Amino acid sequence: MEKEISQAVIRRMPRYYRYLGELIDEGVERISSNELSYRMQVTASQIRQDLNNFGGFGQQGYGYNVKYLYDEIGKILGLTQKHNIIVIGAGNLGQALANYVKFEKLGFVIIGLFDVNPALKGTFVRDIEVRMLDELEDFVKHHKVDIATLTMPKEAAESVANKVVDLGIHAIWNFAHVDLQLLDRDVVVENVHLSDSLMQLSYNIVKSRQ
Amino acid sequence: MEKEISQAVIRRMPRYYRYLGELIDEGVERISSNELSYRMQVTASQIRQDLNNFGGFGQQGYGYNVKYLYDEIGKILGLTQKHNIIVIGAGNLGQALANYVKFEKLGFVIIGLFDVNPALKGTFVRDIEVRMLDELEDFVKHHKVDIATLTMPKEAAESVANKVVDLGIHAIWNFAHVDLQLLDRDVVVENVHLSDSLMQLSYNIVKSRQ
Repeated sequence: MEKEISQAVIRRMPRYYRYLGELIDEGVERISSNELSYRMQVTASQIRQDLNNFGGFGQQGYGYNVKYLYDEIGKILGLTQKHNIIVIGAGNLGQALANYVKFEKLGFVIIGLFDVNPALKGTFVRDIEVRMLDELEDFVKHHKVDIATLTMPKEAAESVANKVVDLGIHAIWNFAHVDLQLLDRDVVVENVHLSDSLMQLSYNIVKSRQ
Repeated sequence: MEKEISQAVIRRMPRYYRYLGELIDEGVERISSNELSYRMQVTASQIRQDLNNFGGFGQQGYGYNVKYLYDEIGKILGLTQKHNIIVIGAGNLGQALANYVKFEKLGFVIIGLFDVNPALKGTFVRDIEVRMLDELEDFVKHHKVDIATLTMPKEAAESVANKVVDLGIHAIWNFAHVDLQLLDRDVVVENVHLSDSLMQLSYNIVKSRQ
């Protein structure tokens, strides 16, 4: 488990995890790489290669033990520990994320919601109270926060990102439409740029018509 | 422009487009690949290579004409035409997307919002009325719809996806947490799996602590 795994492989792992979770729900205990290949529309050799990065979990003639593989990938992805999340920006997107109960099944628990709009102060999304951004420092002193989600306009994102890192939060899930320039800081960033995704779709629409 | 461009290159294009748009907003008329490299934190040779796929827009000793490059990339990405979008699933995420006015600047216009929950019928998000899903067929007869966005629970996603393709919509922006199995159908799909993105972040958190 010590060797460096490429980000391309890592990007495919959540998908394996998802499919294996569905197999467990269906009561499937083991599966061959060919069957898994068919379901996931990935070649069997790709699956074997990907999983061999982590030591290879299959046995010749037996296939994969679904629950074991699911648990091992969960460990690789860091899902054995709970991650406390705060969301900064309690607009529609922030509220949508706070309402997404499925994240909790994976151990991602939203424990705080922040905004700068006084009209939102003290309102609730599910059982999560919206606090003002100037209460963040105090909140972080009293709660363990693992991930800060940024769903505010891009103009404010950079300064808020620096602030959360100053407060000791070392992971950012960024929805603001900007690439955060935090290169020298001790922080991991995952960007979700929805417009970029739409533009890629648009490209593929044009291409499919040619 | 006729040769096949890899999806890896295409995935980077929206980011170029975004940065060039910011340069235009700042009044910058031309930029060297070194300056662009510094801003985007990508090597200058990567930039030259990427843009050479489309014929190469730079001139030795001059750099790139920002507005020209922006427009050309916009053409490549299909942004010179308007894309009408409907959103199926008017819950928090669907409403968040419908409220995202910035998509419109890129030519992506949300013209319809659908749900199966009668309590939402006739309500509005911005100026977009929520209609019932059984009105979709009639709506599509009277409106040009280019992209269907799926923001409903995964259990319903596959059948709704097939329905929209039946109705002649050939592009799907999928937020449902499932990979749509529409392989034999004439449709392009762009997936946004938010949980996958969180799991990737989680992996990188664990790795950063090692």
